[in-house]
Amino acid sequence: MQGESYEKAAILGPGLIGASIGLALKQRSLARQVVGLARRASTLETAKSAGAIDSGTTRIEEALEGADLVVFAAPVLATIELIERTGSLVSMLRRIPGRRPLLTDTSSTKAEVVEAARRSLPAEVDFIGGHPMAGGELPGPEHGRGDLFVGATWVLTPTCDTAQETISRGKALAQALGSRVLLLSPQVHDEIVSVVSHLPHLLSVALMGEAADLASRHPETWQVAASGFRDTTRLSASSPELWRDVCLTNCGPIADAVAAFRQRLEEMEAWLRQRQGRELERALAEAQRQRIELKEQESHVLQTLRDGQ
Amino acid sequence: MQGESYEKAAILGPGLIGASIGLALKQRSLARQVVGLARRASTLETAKSAGAIDSGTTRIEEALEGADLVVFAAPVLATIELIERTGSLVSMLRRIPGRRPLLTDTSSTKAEVVEAARRSLPAEVDFIGGHPMAGGELPGPEHGRGDLFVGATWVLTPTCDTAQETISRGKALAQALGSRVLLLSPQVHDEIVSVVSHLPHLLSVALMGEAADLASRHPETWQVAASGFRDTTRLSASSPELWRDVCLTNCGPIADAVAAFRQRLEEMEAWLRQRQGRELERALAEAQRQRIELKEQESHVLQTLRDGQ
Repeated sequence: MQGESYEKAAILGPGLIGASIGLALKQRSLARQVVGLARRASTLETAKSAGAIDSGTTRIEEALEGADLVVFAAPVLATIELIERTGSLVSMLRRIPGRRPLLTDTSSTKAEVVEAARRSLPAEVDFIGGHPMAGGELPGPEHGRGDLFVGATWVLTPTCDTAQETISRGKALAQALGSRVLLLSPQVHDEIVSVVSHLPHLLSVALMGEAADLASRHPETWQVAASGFRDTTRLSASSPELWRDVCLTNCGPIADAVAAFRQRLEEMEAWLRQRQGRELERALAEAQRQRIELKEQESHVLQTLRDGQ
Repeated sequence: MQGESYEKAAILGPGLIGASIGLALKQRSLARQVVGLARRASTLETAKSAGAIDSGTTRIEEALEGADLVVFAAPVLATIELIERTGSLVSMLRRIPGRRPLLTDTSSTKAEVVEAARRSLPAEVDFIGGHPMAGGELPGPEHGRGDLFVGATWVLTPTCDTAQETISRGKALAQALGSRVLLLSPQVHDEIVSVVSHLPHLLSVALMGEAADLASRHPETWQVAASGFRDTTRLSASSPELWRDVCLTNCGPIADAVAAFRQRLEEMEAWLRQRQGRELERALAEAQRQRIELKEQESHVLQTLRDGQ
């Protein structure tokens, strides 16, 4: 779908995701000018060398001046702070009659971010929360890719206060970057990601800890760890600051997901202690069936995308 | 390293691993003839079409007749049964003065298999337990690859009763197939794999279960599940029968690993409920450091292999 095109896009936090959005906006001619805001000048230099931004600044006023698209793409707590500061600076944004500035974010948790926007941003701007389900193993603007969002799901989280037109504009932007849009309430989004994203991350971290403990007794541990272990712990290499923010802004749902998971493990442990082969096999077979279904569904989606439907 | 070459290799259970061994033996001219034993004729047909065996049989006597290399490569419980049956059929193996038949296995758990061999096999054969740390996402002889073991760790598990010569012969075989050999006692092997292989598998299964529960309430779950979720649950697509056997022959160590893991999660849950950002960040940073170290170690090993050192 053809998106609106913007005069000046401000990317507040041009890390992997922010830089990829900058690249995609420029490659698809969706923004005449892309400006990045970061705390460190080196981040801006890297983003500029990567072609993700035209210019960079460490001053938020300079980034927002004349912008008609603002993307908050910093870690969650920093994004909340940036939204609050933007609230008192909206008069600096581009004023065109009949076309409000569009503001969105890319945070991994949504309820607290959307609440901050509701509290801080006036009705004269369009805000919709967003979460592109894309990423890479390595962080930083140097790993940004203009095609990062192609075929990915981009969750948008309107509330009952969000105007239909704001939703349409958010959808058009995400689709113009190549994504499939999914609308969810901030609360349902946060519940789902607590299970399919935040829980796997914590499992990966805990597994790395268990293996490191074992390795302190048996140094051969790392030689024995094969591809399955590496797959399961890959997530734990991500940024601790970023994930601390995710945990702190989605505490309740994540803690509940961890509690439910612990209960499931308790059951498995009992089957193991009692050598209940039948119960173990039933759980293993059920998971296999579900995982194969998921894979088939995925192949189907890829095929549909390839067929251009 | 140049391995001994064998007249007739019997692969008892030519699945992914057994078929890959057959292919590697033939490609490297380490066996003049490779015979496969399976319960189903269709498995033998597939293994033969894949070039992994020269001929197949469903009768163990026919497979063992004149063999000087026997590889037990069935699921663990079936392997134990095959070892017991072979114990009463050793007279059928090839008799060359001064060169005993070599018997080994590829099971994922070692203590019970090695104990079955000690109980069932007479001193006139050389037995050493083995576990090549290699595999693939898809099971079956059609996915076998002659280079599956190149660069992989192949654990051998001698006991205090294993002769030095038997260890040397086992090493030569694994190295001739391209592996790096690691010697561990069956007990230490089982403890290590309970943490780096069996625990990740059960985590993958339990996570798939949690996500499926959530999806029954929120069907959008699968659209939100990104590559991190797919990586963490990939293992759960493996064969339930095979993994049931693994669980049943390594119950104690796996149950202990699950218990330790549950405790670690309990701690994380408390940090989440109390919003202890500092503790969470410390655990996340520690895991990141360990995971990056593991990756660097891996790159170093790959570089060393590439340099042919």
